Amino acid sequence: MGLRDEILEQPAAVQRLLDSGPEAFGPISAAVGSRRPRFAIIAARGTSDNAGVYAQYLLAVRNGLIVALAAPSTITLYGARPNMADALVVGISQSGRSPDIVEVVEEARRQGALTVALTNDAASPLAETADHVVDLRAGPERATAATKTYTAELLAVALLSTALDPPSAGETVDLAGLPALISAALAAEPHARDLAAAHAKRQRAVVLGRGYSYSTAREWALKLQEMALVAAMSYSAADFEHGPLALAEPGLPVLAVAPSGPELEAQVALLARLKEDHGARLLVISDAPAAREIDEGLALPDGIPPWLAPIVEIVPAQLYAYQLTVARGLNPEHPRTISKVTETR
Amino acid sequence: MGLRDEILEQPAAVQRLLDSGPEAFGPISAAVGSRRPRFAIIAARGTSDNAGVYAQYLLAVRNGLIVALAAPSTITLYGARPNMADALVVGISQSGRSPDIVEVVEEARRQGALTVALTNDAASPLAETADHVVDLRAGPERATAATKTYTAELLAVALLSTALDPPSAGETVDLAGLPALISAALAAEPHARDLAAAHAKRQRAVVLGRGYSYSTAREWALKLQEMALVAAMSYSAADFEHGPLALAEPGLPVLAVAPSGPELEAQVALLARLKEDHGARLLVISDAPAAREIDEGLALPDGIPPWLAPIVEIVPAQLYAYQLTVARGLNPEHPRTISKVTETR
Repeated sequence: MGLRDEILEQPAAVQRLLDSGPEAFGPISAAVGSRRPRFAIIAARGTSDNAGVYAQYLLAVRNGLIVALAAPSTITLYGARPNMADALVVGISQSGRSPDIVEVVEEARRQGALTVALTNDAASPLAETADHVVDLRAGPERATAATKTYTAELLAVALLSTALDPPSAGETVDLAGLPALISAALAAEPHARDLAAAHAKRQRAVVLGRGYSYSTAREWALKLQEMALVAAMSYSAADFEHGPLALAEPGLPVLAVAPSGPELEAQVALLARLKEDHGARLLVISDAPAAREIDEGLALPDGIPPWLAPIVEIVPAQLYAYQLTVARGLNPEHPRTISKVTETR
Repeated sequence: MGLRDEILEQPAAVQRLLDSGPEAFGPISAAVGSRRPRFAIIAARGTSDNAGVYAQYLLAVRNGLIVALAAPSTITLYGARPNMADALVVGISQSGRSPDIVEVVEEARRQGALTVALTNDAASPLAETADHVVDLRAGPERATAATKTYTAELLAVALLSTALDPPSAGETVDLAGLPALISAALAAEPHARDLAAAHAKRQRAVVLGRGYSYSTAREWALKLQEMALVAAMSYSAADFEHGPLALAEPGLPVLAVAPSGPELEAQVALLARLKEDHGARLLVISDAPAAREIDEGLALPDGIPPWLAPIVEIVPAQLYAYQLTVARGLNPEHPRTISKVTETR
């Protein structure tokens, strides 16, 4: 079992979590039914923080909840006790062992907040701290870089949203279709391998996304940093225009996640400008030919529901990062200098 | 008047805002006295978003308020109407003209939230939209890259915090001392020029900070990107350990902001490890010799109050970014491809 196997295992891992959903999220649904949280707080670091960015968009759009991404050091270093009493506080951690994330959830529970842990270890300190535990059921993840636990975290966020406000019949169908869409997205592998071979010498990249797909841009950049050792800078496409756009120059590698949806038109306009006016070299993950055909593209299957898009669109990004790592002669299983469990305080 | 003049003007600009503080913030103080906001939301992009990161830490620590950084596209692209009714919603924008920021504040006001605009143009659309307007009084900023409006935004955030909960006698003294501390920080210029000359060939950098200084790390990276065209990646020092640490290698330029405070010890340990174990080349902005002397350093004056540190510590970072831009033969006044007012939707 290696990293590539873990990428390929994602349809099965997502199916396991879908199957366990009613049992895991039923009690959360009951708890919020009697007491609606006023807003939400996500405590997470690294890959899990990118799942938090998805939550920021999904819970705002689907549940009308403002989501704050916790700054754990306000509590752990400065001793702050911000008022979280009527909040929904969600700790997200593959290992469940980052002490600062545990401390945020602990303080929230002490204040009487509704606390939820999304973790791949149901016996971890984070799981022990929260009122409600969702076991991600992704199975052991041996590679240092997180892949299947990330898609499981994203799905857990989507299921949490449906625990707060029940899914429509269409949304239930959307969820059931996820394993097949992820399987279809895995078909990008040969194309990702060819592109990665041609890009093996690249040392830097700008990675763009907007709306739901901003989380994917961040996670793609993180995978490129930790596995392929590429200096990847991710931005929401809107923030990129407020300054970092100055970096645009001939040959700049720009990676983008631009699926069909309300943000597609503005993204295509920006990407076309980056290529035509500035000479950037693009690689766009999209189901929309108009986005993929500006320059190089990696295809997504048709029919991805926008609210679940990050769960599918990260798959070609993972495959590309894996293949680029191999093409650069690096070890994708165990990136240098980092460990699977990072204990920041 | 050029960018360097605007950097040097900061003690005077900060003094102007301090002088106008009672008039500008009195009505906000009165409004929150009768109705305490339940949490806060900051809507901002680019440099102003970095002032929002400072607010995220300061309002949590000093006011016990959880702060969410708005994702404007949830409202502008997806039509979400997240519940902000009992929130304090702060739009931060130098120009006051970014349509998506205006739209967030507009929706918040429609819902009955307490809305505040921090802007350098008291006649802008943002100012017209909010219940309360704080004129930053930084004077016209002609260079594209924001400097004096950034420190003014930071000070406005600090004054907003004291409008929510009155300052102690010591905090009042702290505020009054800011112009002198900023003047003292400007003394770093000759050293910043020498370092920048030696670093002129650098194409990339990792920029680290933690706690209050995370906002400074982000703003330093943004200045390096938009002015000096350096591929600068900023992280909170804690998040950096969760993955991007893999980028550490001999010769990697690491810039850090590590002032005295509860986060100093952990930061010094990480920085020493980056230099000794991984061969990174450090430049550390700090008042603490233990941090500066790990490798290269830029000095901050003694006696900076931790809660106001970002307002002072950005100054050597600005000077370094300016001097690096000059050393690289680029135009610091008007970076390529970006404009002063960016209208994202």
